[in-house]
Amino acid sequence: MKILIIYDSRTGNTEKMAFMVKEGVESTGVDVDLKKIDEASIDDLPHAEGLIIGSPVYYGLPTAEIKKFLDESIKYHGKLDGKVGGAFCSSGGTHSGAETTIIALNEALMIHGFILQGTSGKNHYGAASVGSPDDIDLEACRKMGERLGNLVIKTSS
Amino acid sequence: MKILIIYDSRTGNTEKMAFMVKEGVESTGVDVDLKKIDEASIDDLPHAEGLIIGSPVYYGLPTAEIKKFLDESIKYHGKLDGKVGGAFCSSGGTHSGAETTIIALNEALMIHGFILQGTSGKNHYGAASVGSPDDIDLEACRKMGERLGNLVIKTSS
Amino acid sequence: MKILIIYDSRTGNTEKMAFMVKEGVESTGVDVDLKKIDEASIDDLPHAEGLIIGSPVYYGLPTAEIKKFLDESIKYHGKLDGKVGGAFCSSGGTHSGAETTIIALNEALMIHGFILQGTSGKNHYGAASVGSPDDIDLEACRKMGERLGNLVIKTSS
Amino acid sequence: MKILIIYDSRTGNTEKMAFMVKEGVESTGVDVDLKKIDEASIDDLPHAEGLIIGSPVYYGLPTAEIKKFLDESIKYHGKLDGKVGGAFCSSGGTHSGAETTIIALNEALMIHGFILQGTSGKNHYGAASVGSPDDIDLEACRKMGERLGNLVIKTSS
Repeated sequence: MKILIIYDSRTGNTEKMAFMVKEGVESTGVDVDLKKIDEASIDDLPHAEGLIIGSPVYYGLPTAEIKKFLDESIKYHGKLDGKVGGAFCSSGGTHSGAETTIIALNEALMIHGFILQGTSGKNHYGAASVGSPDDIDLEACRKMGERLGNLVIKTSS
Repeated sequence: MKILIIYDSRTGNTEKMAFMVKEGVESTGVDVDLKKIDEASIDDLPHAEGLIIGSPVYYGLPTAEIKKFLDESIKYHGKLDGKVGGAFCSSGGTHSGAETTIIALNEALMIHGFILQGTSGKNHYGAASVGSPDDIDLEACRKMGERLGNLVIKTSS
Repeated sequence: MKILIIYDSRTGNTEKMAFMVKEGVESTGVDVDLKKIDEASIDDLPHAEGLIIGSPVYYGLPTAEIKKFLDESIKYHGKLDGKVGGAFCSSGGTHSGAETTIIALNEALMIHGFILQGTSGKNHYGAASVGSPDDIDLEACRKMGERLGNLVIKTSS
Repeated sequence: MKILIIYDSRTGNTEKMAFMVKEGVESTGVDVDLKKIDEASIDDLPHAEGLIIGSPVYYGLPTAEIKKFLDESIKYHGKLDGKVGGAFCSSGGTHSGAETTIIALNEALMIHGFILQGTSGKNHYGAASVGSPDDIDLEACRKMGERLGNLVIKTSS
């Protein structure tokens, strides 16, 4: 079983988060394919049981590069239902679009029929950091990876 | 295994949808506890493996009665993670707040750590009708019930 | 000219923000009618040129009491177009539903035909604090009040 | 005074809407600069008093091309506050992401400090059509153009 993690990153903040989400997924025994957006291919989608997307916050939404990937994913529309999904992001300030970015990604994943899971703990909708992720942010990333790894195990069997 | 369906309804439209969501869940062998909001108790939450909420669209959001139920559910915050959730609604017009109502409910469920699933088919975020649900709307309700019933079976075992 | 500020508050955090939004509005010469939700009446709506709503974040949305006020405001549906609106909130944690609460309120105001204004500065969608508002949060509240006061002056003349 | 209308269109549906939004704006005496996304330049932004964006619905969000334009608009961040904005879209089905697309665009505009206005009439958040716009959809487009043209007149004087 495998989760594909796709991320965009300009300053390295979202990348740091991606590495920690990866650790969380791997702690459950699920493999990870981690790709920066310019190396990612939509043709990887059918071969993974899950997709986690990370993006810097740009005008309250994921970057155009991430959006381009989502637009192209229409190639597999109707063939991805039941996979596990999640989203994380890094923003420049507090309450400056992090929640809306994560929710935008969650919505796109729901349109593909994905299975999502929130948390009653920190960062309910998905992991988010303001600027460089601190230890608490990174722990939210790790936990999200763990949560979604476990969800892949439950739903793919 | 059991899914609790809670709904508010003023004109009967959301109620018709609730009955069909119930049929969909039951077709998977999962039991349903169907309650109109004025009979619902948050103390039912820990005893169900899933919660599906239906609401008329009032100012782009679920009704105050539904919101009151959600506010009171804080009693069980941190104890409901991993349950299955979903939302449906009935609006007075096209593009008049149905999507935002369903997403508001989905967000509240994510804050409780629920597991959600969209669909690549009709009504990606959750079943919605404009006015009285027609056969296509009711089929979207039935399918949503079936999808979430199957998700309870997968995730509760 | 007058702006009505309606707020709910449990711990006093949202109330502190409301006082500062009021100061910001008054600095523009526009009057303020400030009411806690249990003293507020929808019959005040037609008599004000603006409505600013503040709420604690409860499950990613405004409280049931605020929602009840919005539901009852249907009495004046179609008679409030062109008034100025805005929203602010106080949450228990970072990225725990503040943005979605403000956006839910903004959406409800748009359904009434209100005029909104964001900001390229802090708290784009509306002022938000995590826990007790600090000086930076309060300054965002004051600026929002000032922005919306000026907007009332421009749009009501 | 001038409003810039930027749109993306694949099948011509969003383009038909754009033409009608233009008519609505022009009926107020405000000029319109109408550009398909591949001809649009962010350097036009400072020279217009308003910006209305139209997009097909792609995974519950505007297209990557529209998003690229928004990302590049950071060049003028902090210099566009107080301009008038709005959004419209065309989707493939009912309740399939039209509302979330419009709200995503409204959020991006709020982050630039734009002034928005909803309506108590049809299509509260912004004009939307399912497939080819019918007469009712086109009338909602015309009315939105008229509303935002009038708002430019009020707020730019």
